[in-house]
Amino acid sequence: MRIDGQGFRTIWPHQDGLRVHIIDQTRLPHRFEIATLASVDDAAITIRDMRVRGAPLIGATAAYGMALAMQLDASDAHLASAAALLAATRPTAINLAWALAQMRLVLVPLPPHGRAAAAWQRAAEIADEDVAQNSAIGDHGLALFAALQAKKSGGRINVLTHCNAGWLATVDWGTATAAIYKAHDAGIDVHVYVDETRPRNQGAALTAWELGHHGVPHTVIVDNAGGHLMQQGLIDLCIVGTDRTTAQGDVCNKIGTYLKALAAFDTGVPFYVAAPSPSIDFAIADGAHVPIEMRSPNEVSYVWGETDAGTVERVRVTPRGSPAQNPAFDVTPARLVTGLITERGIVAAERGALARMFPERV
Amino acid sequence: MRIDGQGFRTIWPHQDGLRVHIIDQTRLPHRFEIATLASVDDAAITIRDMRVRGAPLIGATAAYGMALAMQLDASDAHLASAAALLAATRPTAINLAWALAQMRLVLVPLPPHGRAAAAWQRAAEIADEDVAQNSAIGDHGLALFAALQAKKSGGRINVLTHCNAGWLATVDWGTATAAIYKAHDAGIDVHVYVDETRPRNQGAALTAWELGHHGVPHTVIVDNAGGHLMQQGLIDLCIVGTDRTTAQGDVCNKIGTYLKALAAFDTGVPFYVAAPSPSIDFAIADGAHVPIEMRSPNEVSYVWGETDAGTVERVRVTPRGSPAQNPAFDVTPARLVTGLITERGIVAAERGALARMFPERV
Repeated sequence: MRIDGQGFRTIWPHQDGLRVHIIDQTRLPHRFEIATLASVDDAAITIRDMRVRGAPLIGATAAYGMALAMQLDASDAHLASAAALLAATRPTAINLAWALAQMRLVLVPLPPHGRAAAAWQRAAEIADEDVAQNSAIGDHGLALFAALQAKKSGGRINVLTHCNAGWLATVDWGTATAAIYKAHDAGIDVHVYVDETRPRNQGAALTAWELGHHGVPHTVIVDNAGGHLMQQGLIDLCIVGTDRTTAQGDVCNKIGTYLKALAAFDTGVPFYVAAPSPSIDFAIADGAHVPIEMRSPNEVSYVWGETDAGTVERVRVTPRGSPAQNPAFDVTPARLVTGLITERGIVAAERGALARMFPERV
Repeated sequence: MRIDGQGFRTIWPHQDGLRVHIIDQTRLPHRFEIATLASVDDAAITIRDMRVRGAPLIGATAAYGMALAMQLDASDAHLASAAALLAATRPTAINLAWALAQMRLVLVPLPPHGRAAAAWQRAAEIADEDVAQNSAIGDHGLALFAALQAKKSGGRINVLTHCNAGWLATVDWGTATAAIYKAHDAGIDVHVYVDETRPRNQGAALTAWELGHHGVPHTVIVDNAGGHLMQQGLIDLCIVGTDRTTAQGDVCNKIGTYLKALAAFDTGVPFYVAAPSPSIDFAIADGAHVPIEMRSPNEVSYVWGETDAGTVERVRVTPRGSPAQNPAFDVTPARLVTGLITERGIVAAERGALARMFPERV
């Protein structure tokens, strides 16, 4: 998508073909900085420290990480250790495991001398596939906006989203935002309520930033406010992303998603989840079996932002001596989900419907 | 309650009998500072800027504000203008209107020369009544903890609370925390999950601070996390406060309370509201009629805290140019409330039950 008129992806190979560029997302929205990854270690640290984040982008970064690994040492041992290193960076998003499996599928049968070139090519394909998937999700989601617009006789459509399932969470377009960008570009009057999304503020820092740069009207709210807005009839539609969706349609996503789904259900607001097929884990039936990442308590105790003097710093918001706890994801039961927007169309969050749409995955 | 071993209330008259002291709550948890109010203007600014907050403490501060006003000028005109000034500071908490009505009831019939002394006396009574009410609420709530302890065979009882309905929100004891302090003091193993409570972080800044100073085990979590903890079976009981409860038991409280009540209902966790009778508004039937205060968007865009250098500063967390919206309260429908803990006992959040417990108010 566009930043000050210039087209960007979140990850792209350097023109020397030996390194990879990313947008350092820990610096947004206060600084726009491009970082360079030269090794699989760089890629692993970048994922772990959330300089890139979002399930699809984590997958693409891991794929490029494997290419960087093969370039240095294409032995079987290094292939295995690089995949293990990357797999251990974040436990919840299934796309990470999916992308590594895709890379191994291509690389393992090849002789070492052919692996680096094949890895760069497969990583580029994974990135392009993500863009195509999200664009297709956007097209299917656009139909929802068109229907809402017809119902509201052209009035403004208010969407609530949680965390960043925007283009910054993917290679391009975003998952939850793909339909928002397509609707906005098609001239539909869309306004987005952006959940701040503590503890890391991906909504306030990333979603608001990317919507603003694309010119989409939006308002930042605290995570506590969405239920009230739904009670007041101010939300027409919720769309969120997912880090892993189970075979029966339970949706694991950023902590707090469950609370918004409950409020949507209670107030009759449609609650959609944008779910590219690599984020669907047909090997797990029930949301209770998704591993939930526990992150550092410091993400709760401190908030990063820009001081009035213009420096980017952290401030402590809790008393010294008060412990904190930081589960990063929760599971929204399928019964609260109106539908999953996949690249093949909108499907009920239900085992049979999912199996019929993705028969090759079951 | 105690701060480093010394007993405090949140508001008390100076020994000269002409001024009032408060704990400046905008400086907590990083600085403990006592401020002095010398005029009704001081009292109004203190309430408006949330140097004192919490429905019961707002009421007590308004009462003392009337005493400060009468001391300067006890005319009918000043009585009316002082009450109007104080009434306009915060719209949602009913205790403010209640305390001002109590003061007018005493002051209006008196000749001006008798008003100052009577105002100081009535303000002190209102403060003492608040302490007594909260202590009684604590005694009734203690029975809930004792029952849970028996059910869990003495294991730890995990409570979730939202915002600060602690002693800092009242004159002493707190509403939601009264039972927690009494249970802890009685040797029951209580642990409190403290919602951060964005945008002003009253949970992280105030509830965690006061629980820590009293020695109650607690853990700060972001507002997004409570639903997940309830799904995981980690919460035995929710207790929150209220700024205004309607005649049919709808509970207006800090923004985000509704989301926690939904999660408690969905997971079968008891959800109690500590409601001293001055916070019950028998003149309003339905939660839809409670005025909801819209506060400054800056409370969303900025977070206050302590830098690593030890200064207390604000940091901007949203991009420049992204608007924010800040509704301060929401309404939890009575159907989601297990019970109201009042100074007369625990009562169903239901019109008939409330009317039977407070027949003189109907």
